[in-house]
Amino acid sequence: MSKPSIPKGTRDFGPVIMARRNWMFSIMRRSFERYGFQPIETPAMESLSTLTGKYGDEGDQLIFKLLNNGDFMAKANSNALDSKDSKALLPSISKKALRYDLTVPFARFVVMSRNDLAFPFRRYQMQTVWRGDRPGKGRYQEFTQCDADIIGSESILCELDLMQLFNEVLSGLGVPGYQIMVNDRRLLNGLARSWGIESQFSDLTVALDKWDKIGEDGVRKELHERGMSSEQIENVMSIFDLLDSQDVFARLKGVQALLLPEDEEAQNAHNEVLKLLEMAIDSGVPISCISFDPTLARGLNYYTGAIFEVRVKDAPVGSICGGGRYANLTGIFGWEGMSGVGISFGADRIYDVLEHFQAFPVESSTGPQVLVLMLDHDAEAGVLKMTSALRNKGIRASAYPSVAKLKKQMKYAADLGVNFVVMAGEEERLQKEWTVRHMETGQQQQLSEAAVLDLIRTTL
Amino acid sequence: MSKPSIPKGTRDFGPVIMARRNWMFSIMRRSFERYGFQPIETPAMESLSTLTGKYGDEGDQLIFKLLNNGDFMAKANSNALDSKDSKALLPSISKKALRYDLTVPFARFVVMSRNDLAFPFRRYQMQTVWRGDRPGKGRYQEFTQCDADIIGSESILCELDLMQLFNEVLSGLGVPGYQIMVNDRRLLNGLARSWGIESQFSDLTVALDKWDKIGEDGVRKELHERGMSSEQIENVMSIFDLLDSQDVFARLKGVQALLLPEDEEAQNAHNEVLKLLEMAIDSGVPISCISFDPTLARGLNYYTGAIFEVRVKDAPVGSICGGGRYANLTGIFGWEGMSGVGISFGADRIYDVLEHFQAFPVESSTGPQVLVLMLDHDAEAGVLKMTSALRNKGIRASAYPSVAKLKKQMKYAADLGVNFVVMAGEEERLQKEWTVRHMETGQQQQLSEAAVLDLIRTTL
Repeated sequence: MSKPSIPKGTRDFGPVIMARRNWMFSIMRRSFERYGFQPIETPAMESLSTLTGKYGDEGDQLIFKLLNNGDFMAKANSNALDSKDSKALLPSISKKALRYDLTVPFARFVVMSRNDLAFPFRRYQMQTVWRGDRPGKGRYQEFTQCDADIIGSESILCELDLMQLFNEVLSGLGVPGYQIMVNDRRLLNGLARSWGIESQFSDLTVALDKWDKIGEDGVRKELHERGMSSEQIENVMSIFDLLDSQDVFARLKGVQALLLPEDEEAQNAHNEVLKLLEMAIDSGVPISCISFDPTLARGLNYYTGAIFEVRVKDAPVGSICGGGRYANLTGIFGWEGMSGVGISFGADRIYDVLEHFQAFPVESSTGPQVLVLMLDHDAEAGVLKMTSALRNKGIRASAYPSVAKLKKQMKYAADLGVNFVVMAGEEERLQKEWTVRHMETGQQQQLSEAAVLDLIRTTL
Repeated sequence: MSKPSIPKGTRDFGPVIMARRNWMFSIMRRSFERYGFQPIETPAMESLSTLTGKYGDEGDQLIFKLLNNGDFMAKANSNALDSKDSKALLPSISKKALRYDLTVPFARFVVMSRNDLAFPFRRYQMQTVWRGDRPGKGRYQEFTQCDADIIGSESILCELDLMQLFNEVLSGLGVPGYQIMVNDRRLLNGLARSWGIESQFSDLTVALDKWDKIGEDGVRKELHERGMSSEQIENVMSIFDLLDSQDVFARLKGVQALLLPEDEEAQNAHNEVLKLLEMAIDSGVPISCISFDPTLARGLNYYTGAIFEVRVKDAPVGSICGGGRYANLTGIFGWEGMSGVGISFGADRIYDVLEHFQAFPVESSTGPQVLVLMLDHDAEAGVLKMTSALRNKGIRASAYPSVAKLKKQMKYAADLGVNFVVMAGEEERLQKEWTVRHMETGQQQQLSEAAVLDLIRTTL
């Protein structure tokens, strides 16, 4: 028999990691619901046609496709078989695929459920997504996204709500030194107009989006390869100078100065971003956690207004959250003109950050707090009684299920990381007193059942 | 553009359903942890070789296989292509598949993590599984299992723990009229020995397992087709007579009478089942919720001792939980002799039962409790202030994000199902008093901010 293994890019989560993940998700869920977001879930399997064409050619390649069940070759495209053409063969042997993100399934859900939903519709969704990316440090083929979106309103109060939500969740999780980076696609549009490169807008955003991977020189090179003149490139690079100031409003002012004064759309966008930042600070988001970054572009094409990214100072990963406004997300499924704005928390990266800074709190452990030991064969009834009594008080407890040497049972208790052990044996039967041991201090006492429960409850 | 849809056998879960599902999962999680079970999760994608051969030929057919990414045809088996042989082609174009249950991945996890775990290891796992079954009422291609297992102990206290856990979870969820059915594979073995049909044991269990679908006559026919004599069949059917008594212990006594007195293994099993049932009742599981069913067989081959199934009286679905003892689960991955026992809660069926009996409690709703209305353009600051104040008190609140007719905003509040609306407008700015309306009674008051918060907190 070969040694079992799991596919590369996937992970098993053992008890310690899972307890922390569950704690993370519970903090997020509580914040989402406090902000009036409602939960939905969509199937892991979507029709292949729902997903293809939504993430670009590269994305299409990375979508995991499910083989049709049964005798899939019976309906396989013969021409494609003859020419061994994987791409042409695909639709005849696969009808379903695994979701690649939560945004496209959300758009499909909204279109299909439009008659049952009240708009603006605020939903949160915390589910696994799958991507056939090359696995690497912090990059998995299976990971969890936690999204919050508001669809059906153009109001900037929605952006504000999401900035407050970033702050609520990330401070609730104790993420140290997070920075909510803000920009607006309309400002980038305005800059492109003022530099006369409107027609190369997507070249601009693609190049900017690579900045944290390729650096400023890389961006220059990329823009050059995409056909921009030296003057145009220098214009673009001038926005990096704005990053010299740490002052949010100074940076924004700097961008405004680069816009054409008569460019009403861009000037309006500037005013809106200014208002958004002011409101966010007024409503309690610490100014130290907010940044305006004119070089922020976000790769995805569907963003049309405000865009967000959250980075963590000195963290071993890139951005941990992202998002933005999209004017027409449901248009891909035939429902035009529904504007919305959404953000996504990358749970796996947030986990990595918290682990890096050793920032998980004690309460993120959910292992048993007490182990009841069985000292001899007659102790069974006592073990059951004490275990039930502990659980009835809401204490997480289990019992050693058979008689074994005390040393072995104590080692098991230590491995489990319990706070107390309670021993059931002859002493307990004769004197009605239990030996209870505090694992951390090693202090051991003989107490009545009620006193044992009291001691444990007050100490935990 | 074609109308979007989702694959048959899959479901979208909207806000009402999701809130109830989350409530269910939180009750289960709390009980699992109180019983000292620790959470793990395994990847949705397993190596194909991990899953195949574990669920029988029929099961293998129902496993969802993932097509290799990229140019999968490049490595396709040429002979299989020429002969259009799906089964022979499969291993050359697919290396991964979706998990089919949580038990096999758990066994793999235990073998791979054996050095990091303390045994007996108690784990719970709540995750989606996928099966290419024909979709039907209560039968989905994607559904959630919630499993609790104890591996590494032969003690009957483990069985007892799981019976208590059934009771704790199902009473916690308010499932009405649940029956925990108990039997033991070793009793069935003993009966087979006493009837001289040991060699047809798996025919026996397969036929019994179909009883609730095909009835007693169906079981007779099945046994006949599998080559049993009339006398053997009458012997088997005699255990159905034992069901005439509702008394747990009378039934068990009836089975004992059918065992060979010198069959030590079977007699021991009888004594253990008797002890288990007595202990379960002693430890607080209501006798009305426990049943002993000598016809219970459970189809799966890996069960070797106690077996469980939970059914609900007058419910529209079959069993909602199952489980049992397995002497050698990890043997399939090369680690022999680890005995364990586990149970599985079928979350989707439990949901269907609770919905059928309209048994979801009020607290299973997590929608916004308050909507703050925006009566005019100057009300923005007031809206923000009140919304934040509500959220800071832990109240689930959102705001109407733009000015709209009062009627429209009130309709939205009603659609959301909020308990209160609070209005921000001129009155609030001039008099510092907010109009707050209780949606259920229609009662409307003018109150200070503090009084609004008090009223809402005390009413909710």
